[in-house]
Amino acid sequence: MQFELTKEFIDDIKATIEAGDEITAKETLEELHAVDIAEIYDELNIDEAKFLYMLLDGEMAADVIAELDEDDRERFLKALPGEIIARQFIDKMDSDDAADVIGDLDEKKQEEVLSHIEDIEQAGDIVDLMAYDEDTAGGLMAKELIKVNENWTLTTCLREMRKQVENVDEVYYVYVVDNDRILKGTVSLKKMLLSDNKNKIKDIVNADVISVKTETSSDEVASIMEKYDLVALPVIDSLGRLLGRITIDDVVDVIKEEAEKDYQMASGISEDVEPTDNIWILTRARIPWLLIGLLGGVLVANVIGVFEIDLGTFPEMIFFIPLIAAMGGNVGVQSSAIIVQGLANNTLGFESMFKKLIKELGVAGINGFLLSALIFVYNIFTSDSLALTVTVSAALFSVIIFASVFGTFIPLLLNKIRIDPALATGPFITTLNDIMGLFIYLMIGRILFTVF
Amino acid sequence: MQFELTKEFIDDIKATIEAGDEITAKETLEELHAVDIAEIYDELNIDEAKFLYMLLDGEMAADVIAELDEDDRERFLKALPGEIIARQFIDKMDSDDAADVIGDLDEKKQEEVLSHIEDIEQAGDIVDLMAYDEDTAGGLMAKELIKVNENWTLTTCLREMRKQVENVDEVYYVYVVDNDRILKGTVSLKKMLLSDNKNKIKDIVNADVISVKTETSSDEVASIMEKYDLVALPVIDSLGRLLGRITIDDVVDVIKEEAEKDYQMASGISEDVEPTDNIWILTRARIPWLLIGLLGGVLVANVIGVFEIDLGTFPEMIFFIPLIAAMGGNVGVQSSAIIVQGLANNTLGFESMFKKLIKELGVAGINGFLLSALIFVYNIFTSDSLALTVTVSAALFSVIIFASVFGTFIPLLLNKIRIDPALATGPFITTLNDIMGLFIYLMIGRILFTVF
Repeated sequence: MQFELTKEFIDDIKATIEAGDEITAKETLEELHAVDIAEIYDELNIDEAKFLYMLLDGEMAADVIAELDEDDRERFLKALPGEIIARQFIDKMDSDDAADVIGDLDEKKQEEVLSHIEDIEQAGDIVDLMAYDEDTAGGLMAKELIKVNENWTLTTCLREMRKQVENVDEVYYVYVVDNDRILKGTVSLKKMLLSDNKNKIKDIVNADVISVKTETSSDEVASIMEKYDLVALPVIDSLGRLLGRITIDDVVDVIKEEAEKDYQMASGISEDVEPTDNIWILTRARIPWLLIGLLGGVLVANVIGVFEIDLGTFPEMIFFIPLIAAMGGNVGVQSSAIIVQGLANNTLGFESMFKKLIKELGVAGINGFLLSALIFVYNIFTSDSLALTVTVSAALFSVIIFASVFGTFIPLLLNKIRIDPALATGPFITTLNDIMGLFIYLMIGRILFTVF
Repeated sequence: MQFELTKEFIDDIKATIEAGDEITAKETLEELHAVDIAEIYDELNIDEAKFLYMLLDGEMAADVIAELDEDDRERFLKALPGEIIARQFIDKMDSDDAADVIGDLDEKKQEEVLSHIEDIEQAGDIVDLMAYDEDTAGGLMAKELIKVNENWTLTTCLREMRKQVENVDEVYYVYVVDNDRILKGTVSLKKMLLSDNKNKIKDIVNADVISVKTETSSDEVASIMEKYDLVALPVIDSLGRLLGRITIDDVVDVIKEEAEKDYQMASGISEDVEPTDNIWILTRARIPWLLIGLLGGVLVANVIGVFEIDLGTFPEMIFFIPLIAAMGGNVGVQSSAIIVQGLANNTLGFESMFKKLIKELGVAGINGFLLSALIFVYNIFTSDSLALTVTVSAALFSVIIFASVFGTFIPLLLNKIRIDPALATGPFITTLNDIMGLFIYLMIGRILFTVF
């Protein structure tokens, strides 16, 4: 029932294509969904993909194009004339997919494709949608929906729905508008099934409908749909007129990307990359953070340079430089990750920043005490120098406290001044903690080695 | 239209509750959705929450309970007798929510609640659902759905749907079964609206329906619904009989948690925590990785100890110890994060492990060359020692190559032997790279300082 793409399957289909065996290829494709075929396309070269494409019927071909990766689609459409793109694909797509596909083409090609769309109304819808920023509700919505007038009876409503439903893949909700096209609410299938046919829509409308404006950010759209468990969300203009609807399948991608973006930033990857991207893209995504790390390393080298004489006198201190730096980094990353996820999920609660820091101090205090005690016991047994033993434990405790507070405070601060707090996690906070951590360690060392 | 919880709102409502002003409180609640009220409950103490709860009508009270955090719900239900829980909440809930709520109670309370459910069939459904592991399709599904027989006419079908729809919140799909309750497909609302009432369901059924078995893992359920853009997914038993359906709102949580779990592991947090959790839980989630980091630091200290004499002779090498360690860590985390996300999203492609490593070597080669060249130029200008300059650059290049390969190989290997590859990212890989990186650095230093 579900399809799992395997290496063997790809090898088989490549062999079929090479043999030019249209019948076998067609049989294979017939059992698959558009998204499966799009996955297969990813693994083929352009000629192989074209061979398969010629075997698909119109509707399916359009669906496959809509499901393709942006890069693959661009590569594929570049080779086709605008008229073919318009007639074979765009005419059969939902307006939101069509706007996305056309939006990815270069400007000249865009005009060419738009001029060949037969249905003027559809072309208008697509141009409307292309005007919205892709990270807003306008950029996510489709124009296709079922819309009934509040003054209709249920009978009229059913008749009109029959006409409208031709263009809509999934109904989900039936939207109710007034004579000025202003969104008034929804009618559920349940209510329609249970009501008398002579009832007016007005009498069974559920006015308690959540909607967003075209300029609402896609993050906010995602969090509203997630919070209220919505499958579709109507989009209105500033007058309250119904313009389109956003369906959950498009928003699942936004939710997932958002969660993944935080992870990528924490790992020091500055753009959305996949293992299959080319070497150049992978390098570009990774070098910015590595440069920051390198700069941090040079600064740390200079901090150590300031303490060169101390280290010459008490060389045992050198052994624990990496431990102090690493622990500062680890604690800082933990602290900031908890805050970044809390901010993303809106689970921070309403404690003041001060209270949050106090709590973090509590956690840091327990962790710091435990870890310092452990390393104290270790050093008592392995080192002759009491000064070293005390220095390492005191510094470790201080560094854990510092890194916790710092890792909590920085993302909260960034969030307050409206910079993405995920920036604070990963290499940035690790590097700053390295510098401060070693400075604390070497300062404590200088003092304690003089005392003992 | 949407509600945003603010500190002011909470203060207001607390004041209203303290004044015992039921009318104002009721007015406030009436404008809100169940999930909003659940959010408010999170901020109140148990007495304040009870005051509000008494003002809600039955249906709403049940919805709020279903939306509450597990902890809050447990705290709240503990105070109520089983009969009240059954009559006031469970009777009004969907079977999946009811099974979750009852499943969280202790065993004695579970029996007490179950014995007070009036509808024997519903009690049976709940007990059935409670038997499934919560991380499987069985654990995610609800029993409520619309089911029609393939031999019915459209007219019969509509009449039967009217009866069934009473218990179903959202319809989404109408499922078609045969006389043995075996799932045969779906009929869309679209088809029903466009077909003649005398048609049999058999004639308009869409047999191409994707389903899962009760034991399918929730991760797989999520990836199927995401891939095929499904809003609801039917669940069948091993004979193919329709048992229930999973709706997208429950799966969005699974998708999000999965993406967040990888981030948490990469940040060294070993269980799912929120900033509002107590100090003990937050500490417990963080200490395991810190212990590993501490152990790594001790090992690094021993590695450095082996080179104590070299460092005494060439003390400039000390300055760059943190830089080498940090860069190894950063590169390793980047490499493993790309692989972990690729594995999670199934975007790794079908290149062999060998090819992936070769590609990673390419990226590492470019990054390594650039960064080594930069630090070379820096050292030429700031250091008198050519040996140091060459050592740092050669070691940095080697460490970047090693950390890349290691960061790519370990998660791929873990995945192959079916251990969660996310384990490899974060503190674990950082620590191992620290140790190996410093060993490489100090070895190269020993050789080059002898040569120059």
